[in-house]
Amino acid sequence: MVLREGDLAVVWIDPRRVYLVKLTPGKKLDTDKGSLSFDDVIGKEYGDAIEISKGRAFIMYPYLDYIYDGLHRPSQVLYPKDIGYMIFKSGLRPGSVVVEAGTGSGFLTISLAHFLGESGKVITYDIRDDMQERAKRNVELVGLSDRVVFKKGDVRERIEEENIDSVFLDMPDPWLVAENAYRILKPAGTIVVFVPTVDQVEKTFLSLKKCRFIDIEAVELLLREYQVKENATRPRSIGVTHTGYVITGRKSIKGSSEISE
Amino acid sequence: MVLREGDLAVVWIDPRRVYLVKLTPGKKLDTDKGSLSFDDVIGKEYGDAIEISKGRAFIMYPYLDYIYDGLHRPSQVLYPKDIGYMIFKSGLRPGSVVVEAGTGSGFLTISLAHFLGESGKVITYDIRDDMQERAKRNVELVGLSDRVVFKKGDVRERIEEENIDSVFLDMPDPWLVAENAYRILKPAGTIVVFVPTVDQVEKTFLSLKKCRFIDIEAVELLLREYQVKENATRPRSIGVTHTGYVITGRKSIKGSSEISE
Amino acid sequence: MVLREGDLAVVWIDPRRVYLVKLTPGKKLDTDKGSLSFDDVIGKEYGDAIEISKGRAFIMYPYLDYIYDGLHRPSQVLYPKDIGYMIFKSGLRPGSVVVEAGTGSGFLTISLAHFLGESGKVITYDIRDDMQERAKRNVELVGLSDRVVFKKGDVRERIEEENIDSVFLDMPDPWLVAENAYRILKPAGTIVVFVPTVDQVEKTFLSLKKCRFIDIEAVELLLREYQVKENATRPRSIGVTHTGYVITGRKSIKGSSEISE
Amino acid sequence: MVLREGDLAVVWIDPRRVYLVKLTPGKKLDTDKGSLSFDDVIGKEYGDAIEISKGRAFIMYPYLDYIYDGLHRPSQVLYPKDIGYMIFKSGLRPGSVVVEAGTGSGFLTISLAHFLGESGKVITYDIRDDMQERAKRNVELVGLSDRVVFKKGDVRERIEEENIDSVFLDMPDPWLVAENAYRILKPAGTIVVFVPTVDQVEKTFLSLKKCRFIDIEAVELLLREYQVKENATRPRSIGVTHTGYVITGRKSIKGSSEISE
Repeated sequence: MVLREGDLAVVWIDPRRVYLVKLTPGKKLDTDKGSLSFDDVIGKEYGDAIEISKGRAFIMYPYLDYIYDGLHRPSQVLYPKDIGYMIFKSGLRPGSVVVEAGTGSGFLTISLAHFLGESGKVITYDIRDDMQERAKRNVELVGLSDRVVFKKGDVRERIEEENIDSVFLDMPDPWLVAENAYRILKPAGTIVVFVPTVDQVEKTFLSLKKCRFIDIEAVELLLREYQVKENATRPRSIGVTHTGYVITGRKSIKGSSEISE
Repeated sequence: MVLREGDLAVVWIDPRRVYLVKLTPGKKLDTDKGSLSFDDVIGKEYGDAIEISKGRAFIMYPYLDYIYDGLHRPSQVLYPKDIGYMIFKSGLRPGSVVVEAGTGSGFLTISLAHFLGESGKVITYDIRDDMQERAKRNVELVGLSDRVVFKKGDVRERIEEENIDSVFLDMPDPWLVAENAYRILKPAGTIVVFVPTVDQVEKTFLSLKKCRFIDIEAVELLLREYQVKENATRPRSIGVTHTGYVITGRKSIKGSSEISE
Repeated sequence: MVLREGDLAVVWIDPRRVYLVKLTPGKKLDTDKGSLSFDDVIGKEYGDAIEISKGRAFIMYPYLDYIYDGLHRPSQVLYPKDIGYMIFKSGLRPGSVVVEAGTGSGFLTISLAHFLGESGKVITYDIRDDMQERAKRNVELVGLSDRVVFKKGDVRERIEEENIDSVFLDMPDPWLVAENAYRILKPAGTIVVFVPTVDQVEKTFLSLKKCRFIDIEAVELLLREYQVKENATRPRSIGVTHTGYVITGRKSIKGSSEISE
Repeated sequence: MVLREGDLAVVWIDPRRVYLVKLTPGKKLDTDKGSLSFDDVIGKEYGDAIEISKGRAFIMYPYLDYIYDGLHRPSQVLYPKDIGYMIFKSGLRPGSVVVEAGTGSGFLTISLAHFLGESGKVITYDIRDDMQERAKRNVELVGLSDRVVFKKGDVRERIEEENIDSVFLDMPDPWLVAENAYRILKPAGTIVVFVPTVDQVEKTFLSLKKCRFIDIEAVELLLREYQVKENATRPRSIGVTHTGYVITGRKSIKGSSEISE
């Protein structure tokens, strides 16, 4: 596939130098390893590389993890490790229709839209206009606007949708949404919640239990990166030691006053 | 959606009693918590529940994690936590065409087929006929046969496909496939490898580096399950402490003799 | 050192067969790997080995970790990994005088007594007579009775000692002891608390802060065991995933209303 | 205990501002939180505090973990969590005589000397003079010189001692010392090794097995620090993710050709 004006690409120089760019003619990317003119990139294909003054710039496909690295995300706590697990557990698949709150930087929105495809839909709520504006630009940048509906609103008070496949919550007090999430989910639908503290885990878990969700689980995912060298492989010395916890549950239309665990 | 004869369902009684069943009229499921006649299930919908002698049987949608619990998997080491991450990193999306080896019990095959949808395809190789027979039955059971091509063959020697989006390897000596994987991947395509030992991590990582893959990463995912009780939340005491490592890389058509990390 | 009648020894057959025994003449140890007569052990030295019907019985010195394996401990949650860290942080050294509550099975008591030597002292409190009786027998068995004072009493209400080097708490509600611990510690003395849940961590940490302790830390130690084989080394698959948390603080005679962290 | 001229003390302002100082009259400590004249400290006791311009300086006892923070340690990889476990497993107690190599910055030396007391001895080897000079100054500073013997030498070639309680190795190729360590240990004595990479774990473990050590274990300790706030407790976000592995074994005078694990 030949890259054309306006295409999205990732310039990968090394793991610490990853740039998400729109190929605008006449523009260029400046880095401490050298400059890259986008005119030189247009006409190439993903996977190709261009020599720059102090190294090599690889032109890569805008994979989700590069988008994660490339987006401006002041509020981001959700990491790829967490999102991969959340999507796996949610049951999401091509064609799914899901509700998300809050929108935040839009990275979870983009990930959901990626996996549910052209026939699916993400309805994403946020109480803050300014946040959604930035998320909207991010979603547009990656070309997934057709799959996303942005709504300003407080999901603790009201969610308009019904018969939804999954609900994703990344917000400070998700336990206040348990009842509304239960109502809009279709039977056997999945709720997926991400929170950073243990107190939030407890409140969320117990509120899901009260609201007739079953199969409720709370887990934490730790990612260890390895530094590989011949006969000297070991985990990296310094890194991320905590992002948050994932709580999942599924809607039972009858519920159970006595869930055994 | 009303459940009909022949449908696949999950009977969920508690986290340790999860059964994947085909709703055959006249048959029943026997557990230590009581019996469930499938005739009683037919006509219900996912999310409903039926009283059994010592509890309640929830009729659930066959989500991937229930399939994982329900499949017969003597050789399985890949866990949902690993698969979620592998799929996220791979770039897989609706319509992707991927190659997998070895087929094993078919659980990774099923997960890939789930996410790449009706327009995608998994070509899965195994050197053992008997393994593939069982995997074939598992894939049929979950209704995804249209998306999967089973091939008997040794990917270390030959892979017939070309221009593939991603290659997934879960086999003892993946480093012997690095060259073939590179050849069949389209530019910027992703290789994703799962191995249980550190020596395999090292050999795989270094072989990918030699074969002009870039952005090579080796990680380990640890999942901690939490036991939630009011004012007494804590991680579970005993559990899985290791499954394996995930190595990923992306094809550069030029490669680099000096990849900085 | 030649082993004599009445000496304490460990019979180590393999990591799952570790026996703490008193060398009583005429007695023997029966295991599924064979029988060992103590008459054959008397006269040998630590480090020696004796053939038994299905293997080899190593006669080992009663190290703390063997005592841990060998003691009857129905209530035990403290593991060697936790105790090693607790003792390191406490500042304990030969000659220290420390207070402990509750006594439990006496394993922490024994560990403390081991490290503070003949010139040190552990005063250990428990509210239950029956627990202390068993702990007393355990301490006697390992020959450390001279270093331990057993007291029945509720440390939440009253601790008689003063000018103590360190206080160790392994009990359900240690935050109720913060004030008393502060009072009996000498200036700059250390408090060390072990609790299994996050709620207890929070309550303990905040109570220490209120009681003018400084340098308060809460940590969790995870121990991963490795299975070593040539070119196939990896962590063990199943194991302990949680024991508890360690909270430490030090007594400041002035305290601080605003401790920065 | 009243602090006098020449005493060692720790000035603790907050967890990131910990200073190990010798109380020299007329001198002072300058920090970004203010200045502290040692003349004001002399006459106070450990546990007291002095107001400085932007906070409070607590005068603390020189506990091992403060010494760890305070020492100049360019080469240090051993952390308190590792040392606590190593000492616990070693069987070290007041009066023990142990051999250590290499000396490094001397922090393990100091920790060993702390726990084995006035009647014990650490013989510490290093092949580099310059390293030992710095370690010697560190050991002197904390007043433990009487318990430590410094030797320049290569333990892979020769160790002069015999009948040693424990051998501690923190060096690049400890497997080359297995035979010498075995020889100088007394029967049932313990070897304790710290290494940062998995390849070193494997080589060390297998060499101990060959040299008739038994009960060989390889473990990794992970320390998670918690950030405690009312209703918002969680692990810290960024931190140390790897230090190294601890391998332990015990000398059997007969050894075993078939150690079961």
